[in-house]
Amino acid sequence: MTDTLKVSTGPLPASEKIYKPGKLHPSIRVPLRQIAVHPTAGEPDLPVYDSSGPFTDSNVAIDIAKGIARVREQWSIAHADTEQYEGRHVQPADNGFASGERLTPAFPVINRPRKAKNGKAVTQLAYAKAGIITPEMEYVAIRENLGRDAARGILRDGESFGAAIPDHVTPEFVRDEIARGRAIIPANINHPELEPMIIGRNFLVKINANIGNSAVTSSMEEEVEKMVWAIRWGADTVMDLSTGRNIHNIRDWIIRNSPVPIGTVPLYQALEKVGGIAEDLNWEIYRDTLIEQAEQGVDYFTIHAGVRLHYIPLTVNRVTGIVSRGGSIMAKWCLHHHRESFLYEHFEEICDICRAYDVSFSLGDGLRPGSIADANDAAQFAELETLGELTRIAWEKDCQVMIEGPGHVPMHKIKENMDKQLAICGEAPFYTLGPLTTDIAPGYDHITSGIGAAMIGWYGTAMLCYVTPKEHLGLPNRDDVKVGVITYKIAAHAADLAKGHPAAKLRDDALSRARFEFRWEDQFNLSLDPETARLFHDETLPKDAHKVAHFCSMCGPKFCSMRISHDIRAEAQKEGMAAMAEKFRVGGELYMPLEGGGAG
Amino acid sequence: MTDTLKVSTGPLPASEKIYKPGKLHPSIRVPLRQIAVHPTAGEPDLPVYDSSGPFTDSNVAIDIAKGIARVREQWSIAHADTEQYEGRHVQPADNGFASGERLTPAFPVINRPRKAKNGKAVTQLAYAKAGIITPEMEYVAIRENLGRDAARGILRDGESFGAAIPDHVTPEFVRDEIARGRAIIPANINHPELEPMIIGRNFLVKINANIGNSAVTSSMEEEVEKMVWAIRWGADTVMDLSTGRNIHNIRDWIIRNSPVPIGTVPLYQALEKVGGIAEDLNWEIYRDTLIEQAEQGVDYFTIHAGVRLHYIPLTVNRVTGIVSRGGSIMAKWCLHHHRESFLYEHFEEICDICRAYDVSFSLGDGLRPGSIADANDAAQFAELETLGELTRIAWEKDCQVMIEGPGHVPMHKIKENMDKQLAICGEAPFYTLGPLTTDIAPGYDHITSGIGAAMIGWYGTAMLCYVTPKEHLGLPNRDDVKVGVITYKIAAHAADLAKGHPAAKLRDDALSRARFEFRWEDQFNLSLDPETARLFHDETLPKDAHKVAHFCSMCGPKFCSMRISHDIRAEAQKEGMAAMAEKFRVGGELYMPLEGGGAG
Repeated sequence: MTDTLKVSTGPLPASEKIYKPGKLHPSIRVPLRQIAVHPTAGEPDLPVYDSSGPFTDSNVAIDIAKGIARVREQWSIAHADTEQYEGRHVQPADNGFASGERLTPAFPVINRPRKAKNGKAVTQLAYAKAGIITPEMEYVAIRENLGRDAARGILRDGESFGAAIPDHVTPEFVRDEIARGRAIIPANINHPELEPMIIGRNFLVKINANIGNSAVTSSMEEEVEKMVWAIRWGADTVMDLSTGRNIHNIRDWIIRNSPVPIGTVPLYQALEKVGGIAEDLNWEIYRDTLIEQAEQGVDYFTIHAGVRLHYIPLTVNRVTGIVSRGGSIMAKWCLHHHRESFLYEHFEEICDICRAYDVSFSLGDGLRPGSIADANDAAQFAELETLGELTRIAWEKDCQVMIEGPGHVPMHKIKENMDKQLAICGEAPFYTLGPLTTDIAPGYDHITSGIGAAMIGWYGTAMLCYVTPKEHLGLPNRDDVKVGVITYKIAAHAADLAKGHPAAKLRDDALSRARFEFRWEDQFNLSLDPETARLFHDETLPKDAHKVAHFCSMCGPKFCSMRISHDIRAEAQKEGMAAMAEKFRVGGELYMPLEGGGAG
Repeated sequence: MTDTLKVSTGPLPASEKIYKPGKLHPSIRVPLRQIAVHPTAGEPDLPVYDSSGPFTDSNVAIDIAKGIARVREQWSIAHADTEQYEGRHVQPADNGFASGERLTPAFPVINRPRKAKNGKAVTQLAYAKAGIITPEMEYVAIRENLGRDAARGILRDGESFGAAIPDHVTPEFVRDEIARGRAIIPANINHPELEPMIIGRNFLVKINANIGNSAVTSSMEEEVEKMVWAIRWGADTVMDLSTGRNIHNIRDWIIRNSPVPIGTVPLYQALEKVGGIAEDLNWEIYRDTLIEQAEQGVDYFTIHAGVRLHYIPLTVNRVTGIVSRGGSIMAKWCLHHHRESFLYEHFEEICDICRAYDVSFSLGDGLRPGSIADANDAAQFAELETLGELTRIAWEKDCQVMIEGPGHVPMHKIKENMDKQLAICGEAPFYTLGPLTTDIAPGYDHITSGIGAAMIGWYGTAMLCYVTPKEHLGLPNRDDVKVGVITYKIAAHAADLAKGHPAAKLRDDALSRARFEFRWEDQFNLSLDPETARLFHDETLPKDAHKVAHFCSMCGPKFCSMRISHDIRAEAQKEGMAAMAEKFRVGGELYMPLEGGGAG
């Protein structure tokens, strides 16, 4: 069977996977990708953050029927506060009653789940509060530090709007940020395959990609490949938004092969269990679904517990009503039963479950605006108040929390979202979808939202949920997923630069030097998408000889400003103009002409 | 011959071209595009700004060998301050000495050029200062007002950073803005085919698309089509950046068919005339090129007169030196001769030429940064000071001016560019390339720059020069041009929304209503790119039946939040919840629960 279960593997061009060990926890091996530059550059290879897992390590043999290495397994056990148990039995409803050929096969390897021993909190937040630096914390500290050593001595430059990004990330800093609720490490104890990552305003801005089975096809190979493909291009977490049949089994295949946190909206599976009738949902079925998914290793749950009965009337006069699927399902339930949301009423019990497995909360914004017209309205901000209230309850229960945000917001209303979220939710990490800055460009909503994402990331959002070109129109294909991920890597990186992340600029500078020195191969290799960069260059100048051409492909040698700049630099050196420039700068005589002349 | 000279014609889907007459000048016919919505919407058709010219008017027969209608011809003549004359004779050097089959045929219809009678200023600025409301001014007032009548009574909402966008644009407001130098109407008296448009901070944000001949092919049909294609998708002006052979003849074909202002960089053609050797440039050849192009009808010139000799040393320690082609050519000239720039020294004479034809200045930023590392540096801001000085000289000569801006700038440094430009250049319109907010994504620089363009447009930039996905890598093809234009229409529109343009939101709202009401056809038709929106929908749900489906193609009926929202709305109406919502809003009892319950 394994012969046919192929996913995308192999390193990116000119890249090598290397691992850094821990000091507190010497057994941890933190991955990074090292991009080789041409020897003529006279500069070291560039290390970059790498979320792609073992799939890009040429030394690792991948067999998705076995799952990837369980790197965290011993870390959880070492705390001695969990126990293995039989676990819930898979029921036909978990897979939408699929059977025979329509049933996606169960993942072949069975691992009994773990949970906290009686009453214990096994969350990163509980450990952080207790002053414990876990392997996960040291892991993310090393991961985030990448490149900062090389950046030592470079003057920092940015506007972080009150964030507190350190020059160097220590494990203790990570612990402190988690203890304060300002950052989370989504890391279910039943997801030992995870390479830990951190989400918080004082760390690199992260991105999420959504995947999900399609109604037509749902082979496990295809679903695992969606995740592998998304992380290959830089997704930091992946949400499995599958609906319909085979949800349980597909999720198992995904998690057993995922080095990144997997998020879900448990309500979707719960709704399937009641045949898609929102009114038939109840707490027991929902609770059972939470345990099912927690035992599988889901790292964070989107919970729409902020959609309260009395907020629903506030959406009635909206242009686009309620556009969150989870939000609309809960609103329908509340209205039909004329009862307060069972998610809100049972929130403490939900916390108890999350606390026993360390499932992080992603408190859903069920009332987010779905159009420019509805941005920042009463419904949206009413829900945000409730999310703030729930955040505090979750923290008391030692649960990790992030907050979901909109949606569709014009540029001038974006900052208000960030400011309110920080104030109301006690600086819990913000996780936004876009926002889209206009509604008029279906087919290009990766761009309408990439603008908003870059801005809200700059203002302080910790993780950006991607939007693909197919948003509002259809299901994203492989290319759409890649374009969505790359667009959001751009937004996240632009935000890091603007916030003044101490090492973000290193990659820009390395690429710009390659550009100025006509090192075309380095330009491709250092870019977010080497394949596309090379392809575009080939379209105009396909020959290999042109990859060493000392002029831009667009202009030819006569008009190549960079080539002329080299001539200028050579002449300037002859004339000692560098020294002259220094004189101007120091003496402040910038505007004194060197010789006569003037306008006219 | 005309049979074979085909360009893209015909209206966009569900669109009709209509024309509005003037009041002061009843003969003017201002075009707009009216998009029909489905009768079930119960709302009027939506008028949108239309830069596509007669090519999208199904009542106009297009023959590019004749050129489009000379709508402005009588307007210039009516001033009685110009005269027709023989004009300069085309020389072999104007077309790069192309001959025989390699020579692009001359445009078949010859019109003798006009210029100002002795000493007269025939610029829109001169008329504005004299208190004259020209047909061009009334034209753009009507054009800009589009939709504002429908927006009357809507509460304005935005942050314009000190702009003064009126509720209604009067011809007098246009005159005043031009007289103050805060806006320009690029409109060479020798470009009578022009449909006037205005560039200024208090008007809709505009976009420019660059085109240019390629070394390999240069049929006039192909070059005209590039312009037609760019304006079809929304380019407000087009710059012809051709180099090499046939520059003169191709430009003639383009201008005679262009309803939008055409800009050029005259230095490129001057350089061709001296065989591509920067050092061999001189004032006489440059001056001759200016007159050649002014007689043809070029509407604005990029002039890199701010690259002064003593600024060049400031670029020596940059990561990417000088990246403006014009800037690097002038720097090389200055350095080689160790002389002040002839553009700077002869600036008043350049003004005299521009004044005689009403060619607007686009003062080039020859020292703009070409990388994040070089943003906002001493060289860039030194040049900006000179551009401010030149702006005042041009204004004294009654010449219209805009200022070019960067380039590559991280988000936190964008606003400084805008603020300094406004202060130093007396609020002359700013015209920026992007800026790109990171260097690490070649192949996606329409996106890295679309982010910066939206932001700087919001801050006050009047026109955004597009960047295509091929930037830095190769020559844009047809698809690249379209993606570049649409991306920049998104950026410009997002900026208009954020600035609080009184009518910008109408299109967003119309599209969002269509989305909420499952009017799929309306959603496609109201979007910036109806073809792509429809194509993407077809990929998932190809059947026509699905174009009336009452659920989103992504989620199916069970998970369609909008469908559920309709159910909620229906139920809410039964229960009088709209009234209840009003009560909450008015009474301020937003957070009082309707019934018992609470978290836990």
